[in-house]
Amino acid sequence: MKHFQEELEELKNRLLEMGGLIESAVYRSVLAVVEKDTDQAQQVLKNEARINQMEIEIDDLATRLLALQQPMAVDLRFLTAAIKINNDLERMGDLAVNIVERALALMQEPMIMPTIDIPQMARQTESMVRKSLDAFVRGDAELARTVLLSDDAVDDLRDIIYEELMRFMQKDPDNVRPGVNFMFVARNLERLADHATNIAEDVLFLVQGVDVRHHAEVRK
Amino acid sequence: MKHFQEELEELKNRLLEMGGLIESAVYRSVLAVVEKDTDQAQQVLKNEARINQMEIEIDDLATRLLALQQPMAVDLRFLTAAIKINNDLERMGDLAVNIVERALALMQEPMIMPTIDIPQMARQTESMVRKSLDAFVRGDAELARTVLLSDDAVDDLRDIIYEELMRFMQKDPDNVRPGVNFMFVARNLERLADHATNIAEDVLFLVQGVDVRHHAEVRK
Repeated sequence: MKHFQEELEELKNRLLEMGGLIESAVYRSVLAVVEKDTDQAQQVLKNEARINQMEIEIDDLATRLLALQQPMAVDLRFLTAAIKINNDLERMGDLAVNIVERALALMQEPMIMPTIDIPQMARQTESMVRKSLDAFVRGDAELARTVLLSDDAVDDLRDIIYEELMRFMQKDPDNVRPGVNFMFVARNLERLADHATNIAEDVLFLVQGVDVRHHAEVRK
Repeated sequence: MKHFQEELEELKNRLLEMGGLIESAVYRSVLAVVEKDTDQAQQVLKNEARINQMEIEIDDLATRLLALQQPMAVDLRFLTAAIKINNDLERMGDLAVNIVERALALMQEPMIMPTIDIPQMARQTESMVRKSLDAFVRGDAELARTVLLSDDAVDDLRDIIYEELMRFMQKDPDNVRPGVNFMFVARNLERLADHATNIAEDVLFLVQGVDVRHHAEVRK
């Protein structure tokens, strides 16, 4: 049987590997929307099964470590954070798949892309995802806090995009279907940002033992 | 210090109490949409803080029980299932709040409600939520399986509603804004059904030790 600390290290490495897959899925899904890139779309769909499999394996490993040992406080915090982060990552994979499905629907539509700031929202979301994972790797509370602050900016951008899309759809009935698809892309990006925020909250809990869930005032 | 089994019983009771709050929030949020009932909407918003507080307390209790004891396999499964179900319930509370926000926006619109099957989708979703919680209370694997089967029916209904709403919005630019609000109501109901499905999967894992995540073939 491996040493407990080695097993924890293994768990961390697997979470990082999964995080890398998710970052890549999010990036590819956005390319599929913005550049109508079918290859990137297919790649995301292809990797979904592997991500789902990793979630189960990571969950099993974390649960086994909880069961086998009587972990100290710091290790227990790490294990429960790992279970939550794993869960967030798996859901982020699902959201990337949702975005790809909307991208594939949009490719069917012979339409002029409105000047809507989906790419900017996508870049901000990608940056939150990357920072939340970096904060986890390095145990960097400051970086985690910047993720929490970015969440409001993404929400503001979403509101602007929704209003732009509403006007786009009102202008021409033919715009309704693509408009709805873009709206769900924005919604999925917003939820990706929410999951990055969850991960950042878990990192703060892990590093500082501070529970910042549902306490907006603490996050400022 | 209380006996471990008493603490487990306490944890279960708190989860049930939270489940009751969630069932009520979902029911009220649907009334807010369908009957434009402001009082029900306000009640959901009022209960949100309590639900969020309960999530933290349940999470702390479950984590403490994991830390204090070296639980046996069956208790370990219960504790990890409790952490997941708690997380699902909290997210379901957020979804009920989302529905209420759409309901409040819809109340501003002087519009004729199209004959769209939101009420039927809402009833099916409410039934899945109730059954998944009942399955958890009674440890009833058969009931949990019926929840998994219902999920496809809800998804089919969502597709029909989306198409109806698309036509409704294409007919008149003034229908775009209410149409989008209804679309997000349907989307939130679908996600509520997904969380009920997650809970049913956790119940199956708890009762039978079978992991049915991501394995559609096992679920049939």
